[in-house]
Amino acid sequence: MNRRSPAANAQLALLLEVASTPKPGNVDRRRDIPGLRFEHFLAGAVGARDGLEGATADEPVGEAFERAVAGMSDQSGGNTQFGALLLLVPLVKTASLGELSPDAARGVVESTTVDDAAAFYRAFEHVDVAVGDLPEDVDAPDVRRGAAAVAEIEERGLTLYDVLAESADVDGVAGEWVEGFPRSFRVGEDIVTGTGPITDRAAWAFLDQLAREPDTHVAKGHGEAVAHSVMVRAQEARDGNDPALVEAFAESLVEEGINPGTTADVVAAGLFVALERGAEV
Amino acid sequence: MNRRSPAANAQLALLLEVASTPKPGNVDRRRDIPGLRFEHFLAGAVGARDGLEGATADEPVGEAFERAVAGMSDQSGGNTQFGALLLLVPLVKTASLGELSPDAARGVVESTTVDDAAAFYRAFEHVDVAVGDLPEDVDAPDVRRGAAAVAEIEERGLTLYDVLAESADVDGVAGEWVEGFPRSFRVGEDIVTGTGPITDRAAWAFLDQLAREPDTHVAKGHGEAVAHSVMVRAQEARDGNDPALVEAFAESLVEEGINPGTTADVVAAGLFVALERGAEV
Repeated sequence: MNRRSPAANAQLALLLEVASTPKPGNVDRRRDIPGLRFEHFLAGAVGARDGLEGATADEPVGEAFERAVAGMSDQSGGNTQFGALLLLVPLVKTASLGELSPDAARGVVESTTVDDAAAFYRAFEHVDVAVGDLPEDVDAPDVRRGAAAVAEIEERGLTLYDVLAESADVDGVAGEWVEGFPRSFRVGEDIVTGTGPITDRAAWAFLDQLAREPDTHVAKGHGEAVAHSVMVRAQEARDGNDPALVEAFAESLVEEGINPGTTADVVAAGLFVALERGAEV
Repeated sequence: MNRRSPAANAQLALLLEVASTPKPGNVDRRRDIPGLRFEHFLAGAVGARDGLEGATADEPVGEAFERAVAGMSDQSGGNTQFGALLLLVPLVKTASLGELSPDAARGVVESTTVDDAAAFYRAFEHVDVAVGDLPEDVDAPDVRRGAAAVAEIEERGLTLYDVLAESADVDGVAGEWVEGFPRSFRVGEDIVTGTGPITDRAAWAFLDQLAREPDTHVAKGHGEAVAHSVMVRAQEARDGNDPALVEAFAESLVEEGINPGTTADVVAAGLFVALERGAEV
């Protein structure tokens, strides 16, 4: 059992996530993608630490998240870990309050406030986050408005949970918030019970998650059909029992410019759960 | 200019050091060595953070170093960054007190106390550090005695500076302490003034340093003659203007089990200097 604090384990989860390879379409130990290099993720994880520490102290989820994102953004690659931090901050808060369980995590996110929502919108000022057009029936201000949306948030009394619940159907990270982090805990369990280097277990969990659900980050950038096709190709790669097949899949996604970022976020959260439950590095 | 604290920059320096490739003989982004994997260094850098934060606060150099080493050791690979931390802790202290200059750093190490020396010896209890037999004329307790040497240290009134001065001739990290960190600052300058990704600049600095001085970690494990031969081979690789030559050199050192750890420590310290002076990631 490691002696690291929840904030330290969350930082290590960010680092192990990017080091795990092969993670088709994503930056990993062996691949960069245009404009986004491995070391940008290292700097992002270093910069996020203070915000993650805040989540273990008395800082509310929104404030800790905004600080983590501000620190993460102190590198030249752009957005590296926005979605991962949106999962990690409430999970770190949950772990620091007591038991890290789906129910306890649900309690943390359901307790978020209007101030947390305002901080979440302000976080978009620190970094350029890929955001798709929301479906017309979504009843929350567009996050692309950043701090300009805060007045409306406050007027309408929307909490951060309310805001994320609006996009839970089209955003895998928001879905985790609303459903009690089922994928994060499942990946955590898969990693804890696996064998071999933890980065190999995380890479397997990435492929498995990519094979189970369309990646919403891919859907935002390339459409639902592409996201579905990536899922099917991930199934073939996962079930083919041939590392060369996975490598070929990884190469092809990089060539096509397809980056399953939401799945990577879920793996980072799962690594955190695994580390908190005693997974060894 | 980044907004990171000295402790954060030191942590990032540890991460960038291990990510830089090729670094012949060392664990890097593309190579593990038997028993020691990339992710052990990630966990080491995460665990070291609290001790590095201590060095920026009121914690004395020895205490901060011992804490950093204890945290670093919370992974299963063994010693990953003991020497690097022995350079980084006084440099972080220097930066947090004001200007990061060789003179100021000299002031910090010359102000170390008997308590600092005691903490240094205790640090060896946390991790198995490769230590060679010291020359017979060295007049300080063998570090392999760990905490058992503390009584003698206190009785004789040896400061940490005194202790390291004794092995400055045979240990490159101790040499840096006594001489005002000349190689660390030189590497820092080389990295700040270089171009391209910072990890490429650090890899070049590693090869250049290996070509300039025999690595004392290699000398301890394999003898002076081997350390000298590695230096000459590094000169050929550096001056050959052929990346394939450097790769071949890297492969051959891994095959021979030769690990120029002291040179890696100096590069980590140099990366810290570079980051403090505004090098961008």
